[in-house]
Amino acid sequence: MQKLTIVKVGGKIVEEAGSLQRLLADFSHIPGHKLLVHGGGRSATHYASLLGIESQMVNGRRVTDAETLKVVTMVYAGLVNKTIVSSLQALGINALGLTGADMNVIRSRKRPVKEVDYGFVGDVESVDASLLADLIAKNVVPVMAPLTHDGAGSMLNTNADTIAAEVAKALSNTFQVTLMYCFEKKGVLRDENDDDSVISSIDKKSFLDLVEAGVVQGGMIPKLENAFDAIAAGVNEVVITRADAIDDPSAGTHIF
Amino acid sequence: MQKLTIVKVGGKIVEEAGSLQRLLADFSHIPGHKLLVHGGGRSATHYASLLGIESQMVNGRRVTDAETLKVVTMVYAGLVNKTIVSSLQALGINALGLTGADMNVIRSRKRPVKEVDYGFVGDVESVDASLLADLIAKNVVPVMAPLTHDGAGSMLNTNADTIAAEVAKALSNTFQVTLMYCFEKKGVLRDENDDDSVISSIDKKSFLDLVEAGVVQGGMIPKLENAFDAIAAGVNEVVITRADAIDDPSAGTHIF
Repeated sequence: MQKLTIVKVGGKIVEEAGSLQRLLADFSHIPGHKLLVHGGGRSATHYASLLGIESQMVNGRRVTDAETLKVVTMVYAGLVNKTIVSSLQALGINALGLTGADMNVIRSRKRPVKEVDYGFVGDVESVDASLLADLIAKNVVPVMAPLTHDGAGSMLNTNADTIAAEVAKALSNTFQVTLMYCFEKKGVLRDENDDDSVISSIDKKSFLDLVEAGVVQGGMIPKLENAFDAIAAGVNEVVITRADAIDDPSAGTHIF
Repeated sequence: MQKLTIVKVGGKIVEEAGSLQRLLADFSHIPGHKLLVHGGGRSATHYASLLGIESQMVNGRRVTDAETLKVVTMVYAGLVNKTIVSSLQALGINALGLTGADMNVIRSRKRPVKEVDYGFVGDVESVDASLLADLIAKNVVPVMAPLTHDGAGSMLNTNADTIAAEVAKALSNTFQVTLMYCFEKKGVLRDENDDDSVISSIDKKSFLDLVEAGVVQGGMIPKLENAFDAIAAGVNEVVITRADAIDDPSAGTHIF
């Protein structure tokens, strides 16, 4: 099987020209097949605000009403995606920008209303990566925006981490997949006050030990659980690393 | 050779929900392989205005400054393109939204400044349709936004008619291409006051006769010249028809 590296990067890195160009240069140096999943929340908030649409967040997630769906579709699939695609083309990378609607790669279901109505937010239902796999084998580099579709004509706003994980699982039938999440720290830290105390590798057993010892806690627990889910579904390795180290195969925390 | 129908549609048809849904239903009924090229100028003007950016037009063409380039990238590649893609998916058409930057399909050069500085507007330099042809053969339906890239990291605003013609020429190596332009009238009219006086077919010789007789005049002359250029470059047939007749193979004016 050929190798495929899937990098998910969000936050302001992809939304400021200088940091984006550095990131894309590093990304272009990753050997072999690759795929990028990006966010764009800050730009969406910026344009929503200019358009007089209030961005409502609940539990750190955007509530996507009909007007906000238009804004995120414009910003994620238009501005951010095509800025990345044209920049990668300039670096000699044959990028193809996509949402989950394109080639029906990711179909999702509008999240049911429970305590919170998140609006036009999609929970992934199915992934069809067959055409994507053909393109990757021909050295196309997919660049995926955090949007899916419901199969009934509506786009849906979808978490970029989830898109990266679901696409990684689906492509692990065809490729040996490394799924890399860019994180603000160098990796999972043994001591949160020491930025260099990166735990270089974690398997299921050491994970349980680290949780029991209180070293891994809070939001890192579900993050790592999702990583183990991806591995159980066929992904070769999940890496949590800082964006400036994506082209260093020894950096970050390697989960397998 | 398999048949491929390339439909270019602009104007308010693609920007109003009702007329767009009718258009896409008709488009979905065209047998065989197909590709759609769309505009989106009215929405771009609308969002530019909401964002406080003045839309400057010279000779009917948009002047694209840096802020306007962001808006057209958002509107064409984001909102309009993904609305069409998700709607086609709902009709069972496996659409893939693209700009010329994606898979490096169309590279262009920023238009040189002569009397007018059109800003970030691209004149097509090269078309690479090889990956596109593979996808079309696999029943993917490309949906192209009127944007290209310069190969140096910038998107460029590009005329949708030109994109349709250039892609048609490039794909005529692989397919028997019909290039269909949607027009506000039923076709080229023998009598401009009689909407039903459609000239059903025009070849190079009858074109010259029609121009000499004053039947074809004004803006229709360069339109037809461009059609003959496309035919000289390998396109099988160019059709000028009304949007509501794209699924009627006998409607409109057939140029060959």
